[in-house]
Amino acid sequence: MRAFQYIGFDADDTLWHSEDGFERAKDRFLELVQPHVADPSMVATELLKTERRNLPTFGYGVRSFGLSMIETAVLLSEGSVPAPVIGELVAMTREHLQEPVRVLPGVVDTLNRIAKHYPIMLITKGDLLHQTSKVASSGLADLFTHIEIFLEKDDDTYRNAFRRLDVDPTRFCMVGNSVRSDILPVLSLGGQGVHLPYHLLWELEAHEAEHDPTSHERFVALTSIEELPEWLGI
Amino acid sequence: MRAFQYIGFDADDTLWHSEDGFERAKDRFLELVQPHVADPSMVATELLKTERRNLPTFGYGVRSFGLSMIETAVLLSEGSVPAPVIGELVAMTREHLQEPVRVLPGVVDTLNRIAKHYPIMLITKGDLLHQTSKVASSGLADLFTHIEIFLEKDDDTYRNAFRRLDVDPTRFCMVGNSVRSDILPVLSLGGQGVHLPYHLLWELEAHEAEHDPTSHERFVALTSIEELPEWLGI
Repeated sequence: MRAFQYIGFDADDTLWHSEDGFERAKDRFLELVQPHVADPSMVATELLKTERRNLPTFGYGVRSFGLSMIETAVLLSEGSVPAPVIGELVAMTREHLQEPVRVLPGVVDTLNRIAKHYPIMLITKGDLLHQTSKVASSGLADLFTHIEIFLEKDDDTYRNAFRRLDVDPTRFCMVGNSVRSDILPVLSLGGQGVHLPYHLLWELEAHEAEHDPTSHERFVALTSIEELPEWLGI
Repeated sequence: MRAFQYIGFDADDTLWHSEDGFERAKDRFLELVQPHVADPSMVATELLKTERRNLPTFGYGVRSFGLSMIETAVLLSEGSVPAPVIGELVAMTREHLQEPVRVLPGVVDTLNRIAKHYPIMLITKGDLLHQTSKVASSGLADLFTHIEIFLEKDDDTYRNAFRRLDVDPTRFCMVGNSVRSDILPVLSLGGQGVHLPYHLLWELEAHEAEHDPTSHERFVALTSIEELPEWLGI
């Protein structure tokens, strides 16, 4: 009997780069907006506050980030930011959505190898259109038996998906870069978590120190996806 | 044997109001932006052009509409639109997303009655977050055996869903307000189309006159959802 019934993979920052694109957009946002605000040192913090406040209504993803950048620019400039700066923020948002997907090193070979031994599924969250187009253009879609796009990755959304897809959570292994979204919910449902850190983590993805999974018996941290087949014993 | 294996329902402007919210937002957009453009008579047409151009990248929904309004305002004002107007457009977008869902007359009773005789599914398109929250707050979610949120409603997306859900298209009946999105693809796959017009139709939902389904043998137009049970013979 195989150790797991299914292996799940997060997508953004696990299979392909994502957060670095947001970081580049944020740097450009700071350059564009700081000249128009009284206290330039506040801009990054205020953007994050706006993102956090808008999350329940706007959800995840690039379009929401674009709207939050625009709102922050208007607010912090006290209504003085010039319209061409706003035009540039809309253009940045469009270009961000159109960026080709950049698959991380080792992903193609490793997934092909694992998919010969286990059914694998992709579990991501965010914008339906952007996530779908990244999955399609990654060339990896056919390797997955299921592609799930959640609104949020928490105990409830994993539990509902496991029920719908007839997956035994105790025989499920989830691989991802976010402890909060990929590891903790799966551990709490009785599954295995494999952490593959990415060099950047969005502040709103941070988990509380008290929830550190390091000593959990069903948790392992690897440094590269290429270590996964050996860990799986295949 | 029942006439149909499944009955599908569109959501926006079939089960609840939607387009009138966009119309109200557009009216307010015109009021806000026309004072800042050289030719105010162009604003509505240019907004529609921007929406059409952005559709492949931004997709459907309120956030995309918000970004298109902002882009159009900057463009048509030649960069002179004041930032507070932009701030107002972002606020309108947020309020639009937070509006309570307004279920159309007769929907609750009719769906409850039909669901006693047929498995019913909801098939909508657009924003995952906004559509999901409307379905949840409509109080109707539990009536549906399946809730499908498509990126686009065309032959391919219906065909893929029918395959995945093991639905025989020739025993499928789709009820909706958009000939282009709800009726034509289902007719082309061999199913039945029931048209329930709404008093407003977004220009980008219009179908070409040559595709008028009126004389199709598997097409019927009703004037209210309350006529549906009688038409189904239940």
